[in-house]
Amino acid sequence: MTAHLPIPADFANAPDARTRARWLDADRAHRPNRLGRLREVMAREGVDAYFGVRAEHMRWLTGFTLGPGEKASAGHSGEFLIGPDGVTIVADSRYTIQVRREAPDATLDEVGYDLPGAWARLVAATGARRVAVEAAAITHADWARLQAAAPDVELVAADGWVDAMRAVKTPDEVERIAAACAVADRALAALVPEIRSGVTEHELALRLEWLIRTGGAECLAFDVACLAGPEAALPHGSPGDRPVLANAALLFDFGAQVAGYRSDMTRTLFVGEPTARDAALYGIVATSQQTAIDMITAAVGDGRTMPDGRAVDVAARAAIDTDGRWPAYGHGLGHGIGLATHEEPRLSRTAPETPLPSPTVFSIEPGIYIEGETGVRIEDLMHLDALAGVAALLTQFPRELTVLPG
Amino acid sequence: MTAHLPIPADFANAPDARTRARWLDADRAHRPNRLGRLREVMAREGVDAYFGVRAEHMRWLTGFTLGPGEKASAGHSGEFLIGPDGVTIVADSRYTIQVRREAPDATLDEVGYDLPGAWARLVAATGARRVAVEAAAITHADWARLQAAAPDVELVAADGWVDAMRAVKTPDEVERIAAACAVADRALAALVPEIRSGVTEHELALRLEWLIRTGGAECLAFDVACLAGPEAALPHGSPGDRPVLANAALLFDFGAQVAGYRSDMTRTLFVGEPTARDAALYGIVATSQQTAIDMITAAVGDGRTMPDGRAVDVAARAAIDTDGRWPAYGHGLGHGIGLATHEEPRLSRTAPETPLPSPTVFSIEPGIYIEGETGVRIEDLMHLDALAGVAALLTQFPRELTVLPG
Repeated sequence: MTAHLPIPADFANAPDARTRARWLDADRAHRPNRLGRLREVMAREGVDAYFGVRAEHMRWLTGFTLGPGEKASAGHSGEFLIGPDGVTIVADSRYTIQVRREAPDATLDEVGYDLPGAWARLVAATGARRVAVEAAAITHADWARLQAAAPDVELVAADGWVDAMRAVKTPDEVERIAAACAVADRALAALVPEIRSGVTEHELALRLEWLIRTGGAECLAFDVACLAGPEAALPHGSPGDRPVLANAALLFDFGAQVAGYRSDMTRTLFVGEPTARDAALYGIVATSQQTAIDMITAAVGDGRTMPDGRAVDVAARAAIDTDGRWPAYGHGLGHGIGLATHEEPRLSRTAPETPLPSPTVFSIEPGIYIEGETGVRIEDLMHLDALAGVAALLTQFPRELTVLPG
Repeated sequence: MTAHLPIPADFANAPDARTRARWLDADRAHRPNRLGRLREVMAREGVDAYFGVRAEHMRWLTGFTLGPGEKASAGHSGEFLIGPDGVTIVADSRYTIQVRREAPDATLDEVGYDLPGAWARLVAATGARRVAVEAAAITHADWARLQAAAPDVELVAADGWVDAMRAVKTPDEVERIAAACAVADRALAALVPEIRSGVTEHELALRLEWLIRTGGAECLAFDVACLAGPEAALPHGSPGDRPVLANAALLFDFGAQVAGYRSDMTRTLFVGEPTARDAALYGIVATSQQTAIDMITAAVGDGRTMPDGRAVDVAARAAIDTDGRWPAYGHGLGHGIGLATHEEPRLSRTAPETPLPSPTVFSIEPGIYIEGETGVRIEDLMHLDALAGVAALLTQFPRELTVLPG
């Protein structure tokens, strides 16, 4: 149990303007290298150009930034074509000023709203005959339109090329994820004194969001989950008008976004002493999480090959199965995080059996859910850097069982 | 100029629980009719089943609701197959309880995470050989996987079938859009006393969001835009740490969501007297908007055929071009709104030359943007019901030039 309840001052301050400016400079400095590595993949896969539609990929490769809510109305603005020599960003008049500001090294092409009409010209300018396309993000209708617009240009489904590159993080990217973790840690600590039985999930979720967004984050990483008592059994529940219950679980799953990079954490708190059953659940989930942490830490310490995401999931799951009283989580153990909340690498029963990439950042989030009764999940982000011998948690909010005054 | 500054009490209160319950009942009562009309389209197009992936379509046809932030992580949960006799909603364990609650008239199929693996069985159960698929929403990768999973089932791109149906609104849908407008009107009126030079765009945007989300809306319709001075020239800019400037434009573009339905409004306010140039811009944009309003109102009054969305855009644009001093907006004049912020009908230079549907709701939002200097846009929602002789603005916040104390 925590010796003292966490307070905001326990955690790092939000980054200052100078730090943010340094991150922007780092992004720009990284871009030629990122594009160079993508062009190596393109050469290996036998394509001459790469057409991207995913906002995180675009930000990472070009600097042009569309917020999470903007993609739906942006149309073709924020789609991009990488040729052998240059990068073209497609935009309509709503975005041209922003593209010039954020992506000064790219060429802006004002196709307006009719990308298919411009497609043959855009591709011809790169000299490409085979174009990789982000098939898991582009709609089928757009794919078909591009195909019809230039029938002699072959479209090739590009699956996970940039995702694999983005899984490996630079120090400035890890700094930003850590800063997002600190904003979230501070926000939860600031919320603690306001948590009492009777307050609703919805009120606490809105208040936590407010603390995050006035505490150094430009936005949430995803909608705040705040689930009381039996609702904590829903791994994907939304806050409702349900009151916080005494002597029962109160689960918060939330994250911040700082300078584009995201955090993700879950804490299952108790308002008043937990039941013996809930305390036992908490202990088993904590053991499960610690098993995964220890496994990775040991591999880093020994200079061994990193374990694969499937093996870590198996080990964490075994810690719950060994106890034998309650079912292990139905979801995966963890996921990479960065510009997107969920990205590579995956730690799950279906993850590839190849060593985890490095340096990288991912979540470790085992849980136990008992439908209609209760749920416990603990989620922290881990920074793994095998060469540097680092396996460190970025989430700093205490992980031990925390009991708030009833 | 406004005689008095708007206050929250000028606008309707948020809907009560009884009204909300009535809307839910109305939705359920409408569903058989909606499905029946879609099946007529299916018969005409020669398909036996319809596979949908768009969250708004699913809510409208089945009742199952995924929030805007949920779609990204929902996977195949919330995709649906409409056969000749029934509706099947696909979901994994995270959503099964919710599907049963919200879509009691549909069949739930727990395919888990592997839709392609279940595809042949799902389609066979409907007896279908040709399946319409929402090609403008499904990813190309998913389309290709479904095609490979049942090669003898023909996939047909369904383009805009449900969109055209959703453009025509029932009275209870219009009520909800009007309620969303009122929440937004009230929120801006409550913000007015807090607006002064020096406060940042970001602070005002966050505060306005808070007022909307604690004032009767379940969420925003989209991220609040608050743009000061030269930033108002960005038709799609985001709030930053820029302070509100005296004697310059302050543009708010925002909307609320109430019981699923959305509003969208833009007001360009001035903190301290505007320059003569900005006042002139405002007057021209107001005239442009009024031209569009008058054109539709006159057609309704005369019982004439409704104008088409292209003609209205042309007329509003001409009002700016006639003045000749400044460029007309590069975007479209307006868009339909309902469960989605942007939907049919469109009012733009490329809109179809067919009469506007009726009853319907759409925005009218001309603007003038001078890069690096200033921008003015005025946006209101109009409810058009040709048979009932209605052409009424749902947005109630005053449209005339509003000058706040400096």
